[in-house]
Amino acid sequence: MSGGAESPAERTAALVASGDELLRGAHPDLNGPFLARELEPLGFRVAEVRLVGDEPAQLERTLRELLEAHALVILSGGLGPTLDDCTRDAAASVLGVELEYHPSAWDAIVERFRRRGLEPSESNRRQAYVPRGSELLPNPRGTAPGFLARDGRGRLLAALPGPPRELSGMWQNELAPRLARAPGAAPRGRREFLLGSLAESAFADRCGEWMERGADPLLGVSAKEGLLSAHLSSLDPTRLEARAAAFRERFSRWILAEGHASLEAALVQTLSERRQTLALAESVTGGLLAARLTDVPGASAVLLEGSVVYSVAAKTRTLGLPAALIESAGVVSAPVAAAMARGALERSGATWALSLTGYAGPGGGDARAPEGCVCFGLASRGLTFTLRRIFPVGDRDRVRQFALHTGFELVQRAATGRLAEVDGLEPA
Amino acid sequence: MSGGAESPAERTAALVASGDELLRGAHPDLNGPFLARELEPLGFRVAEVRLVGDEPAQLERTLRELLEAHALVILSGGLGPTLDDCTRDAAASVLGVELEYHPSAWDAIVERFRRRGLEPSESNRRQAYVPRGSELLPNPRGTAPGFLARDGRGRLLAALPGPPRELSGMWQNELAPRLARAPGAAPRGRREFLLGSLAESAFADRCGEWMERGADPLLGVSAKEGLLSAHLSSLDPTRLEARAAAFRERFSRWILAEGHASLEAALVQTLSERRQTLALAESVTGGLLAARLTDVPGASAVLLEGSVVYSVAAKTRTLGLPAALIESAGVVSAPVAAAMARGALERSGATWALSLTGYAGPGGGDARAPEGCVCFGLASRGLTFTLRRIFPVGDRDRVRQFALHTGFELVQRAATGRLAEVDGLEPA
Repeated sequence: MSGGAESPAERTAALVASGDELLRGAHPDLNGPFLARELEPLGFRVAEVRLVGDEPAQLERTLRELLEAHALVILSGGLGPTLDDCTRDAAASVLGVELEYHPSAWDAIVERFRRRGLEPSESNRRQAYVPRGSELLPNPRGTAPGFLARDGRGRLLAALPGPPRELSGMWQNELAPRLARAPGAAPRGRREFLLGSLAESAFADRCGEWMERGADPLLGVSAKEGLLSAHLSSLDPTRLEARAAAFRERFSRWILAEGHASLEAALVQTLSERRQTLALAESVTGGLLAARLTDVPGASAVLLEGSVVYSVAAKTRTLGLPAALIESAGVVSAPVAAAMARGALERSGATWALSLTGYAGPGGGDARAPEGCVCFGLASRGLTFTLRRIFPVGDRDRVRQFALHTGFELVQRAATGRLAEVDGLEPA
Repeated sequence: MSGGAESPAERTAALVASGDELLRGAHPDLNGPFLARELEPLGFRVAEVRLVGDEPAQLERTLRELLEAHALVILSGGLGPTLDDCTRDAAASVLGVELEYHPSAWDAIVERFRRRGLEPSESNRRQAYVPRGSELLPNPRGTAPGFLARDGRGRLLAALPGPPRELSGMWQNELAPRLARAPGAAPRGRREFLLGSLAESAFADRCGEWMERGADPLLGVSAKEGLLSAHLSSLDPTRLEARAAAFRERFSRWILAEGHASLEAALVQTLSERRQTLALAESVTGGLLAARLTDVPGASAVLLEGSVVYSVAAKTRTLGLPAALIESAGVVSAPVAAAMARGALERSGATWALSLTGYAGPGGGDARAPEGCVCFGLASRGLTFTLRRIFPVGDRDRVRQFALHTGFELVQRAATGRLAEVDGLEPA
């Protein structure tokens, strides 16, 4: 698979996103990160990403520069029906060809409107043109088709629509399969791990030379609040498997899941497979854990119930906490967390109940629990544990994200019989 | 303020974010959108954004190219203590100066470590160097100082740290005030509006020439699922105020809030000012509305309680819904939404109770309610309304976001006595 004179590992790609709204900061570019992650296993390393406006001259100049330097340029956006949408013209100009009308593309546009009881306007007809000699990429989720062209030097230029769900559909159905078949395609194998309770610097220290630039397998890591995502990738399946085995051994204590894009997806699968269920009682996170879990298809089999008990009144009314306990121990305390978890367990009949109470800031906190302090309760039939953590303060959302990852880690470890590895866990 | 030969409206800026993790797609660049939004009122239009790796040669080439074309280049990332962090060297090389050691910067680093009971390592000393002749920008939330330099042509090059909370702190405390004082600085006034129940194309039709490129005031819009954010900006306060007044009149029916960054922030303020409270009973959104609301400081005075009643069992147990009603009307139905809202109202004693039940997909739906169908219930003392909407399907998270915006819009309109403007609302 990796034949050819040029080293496949060296093939670089550049991404371009076009749209004035990106330059105004209306939203971040999410297509770039998606494509970068998807391109790596196909053997393309993204070397540069550029966001440009809806200006034909700027777009043309950008495409010319990037096709000089890279084997593949993928452009997203600018395929709509209005005059602002200048991707088709800019690409044709850079490739030195005319635009060509595709009746089949127009038929697909008409059909798509028809199904919604509408008719396309004449301006939609612009969307049926692509640069002569390029392949039309049908759009499964929108009107604008994309295209894939090859310039005189064999470099690839692909144009995809801007809306992320249209782009991802066209990528999966059309562009990825073509790139996988392209000459010199070199699929990289990949292994993904999620690790908890480990700082990024401690991770890097333990990795040593595994993380050096140019190492094979390549080891990448990104840190979110309290959660590390690490991935190994290599063109060589044997090297990859050997390193993955060594990685599993070296980090066994911290690995929470393998092969999952998110901890909540791993947790839903873990609980489903074991036919276990969960109830949540959230104070400081205000429904965040429930919202994340229910973003995973299949969560309804796992999450029996969630309560957002933000106020003291809700804690006493919904979970049956004695007001005197809240008074004596403090609302952010291990006894209150334990009672919240037990209350949620009894109400729901779930296998596990998790509670969170804390001070996210800014400000807040009391003599017994400072800002950033979060107490967790974990209850199951006959046992209740608590955990108290103090997270870095200064950003409300960050404290809540730390709490979310720590909470999911607790349940994931509980469900897999690995609670003993959690530092600071106390029986209640 | 807007004197000088060059038109201040023409000043362009470019943003660069450096870091291999950005090119691998580990996370989107959030600094670019933040800076773009912040630069506009200072009179800088962002014309280009580039993401590059931790490669000194690429970074130098990029900075040289961008300083050729723009009045201001802001670089984020690459200010850490490791050899990967090449921003300082690349900037010095492009400016044609040496790096200079600042003892005061080193003292600040030592002090920051000391407060956490730690000592900096010798590699942190690299962070106390900045290009000779540039201004040091202290970092209120991290170790790495930034800097602001001016090249031979008077063009500005600023370097800020990569972590968004460090960057935003340094922006607000250090860089923004300096740019506001820079020669030719031209602060643009800005008015922001949130609009509901209006499609982006219908908005554009009603705006007409207000949205043309180069119009003054400039009108920008971004559409999220079911919510439009529009902003007017101008260098001329009189023109801005006149257009804002015309905008308010033309869009009075759809404007939900003015001057708020998010609908949840507007809603918390609306309810607080009126001393009203809210309870939530969420099925399809699984806690998303509660999580968003509680992300707003001060939400605890407003949100009395939330229930995530994802399963039928939870709906009957927690909200007291008769199982027979769920059976006869269907779990996604106006009668169930109404009963959920009344149940939440009775349990909580809130001013308003909002419920949501629906099919987010993928798949799901039944004979009475298709995939994408969401039923809302809104209850207050003596009155209950329901609303049934069918959102575009194909993306689970998108359906949930539509439901979130529609739900918040309902409560915002209810609290401000504007429910009559909602199409399709039915008394229950």
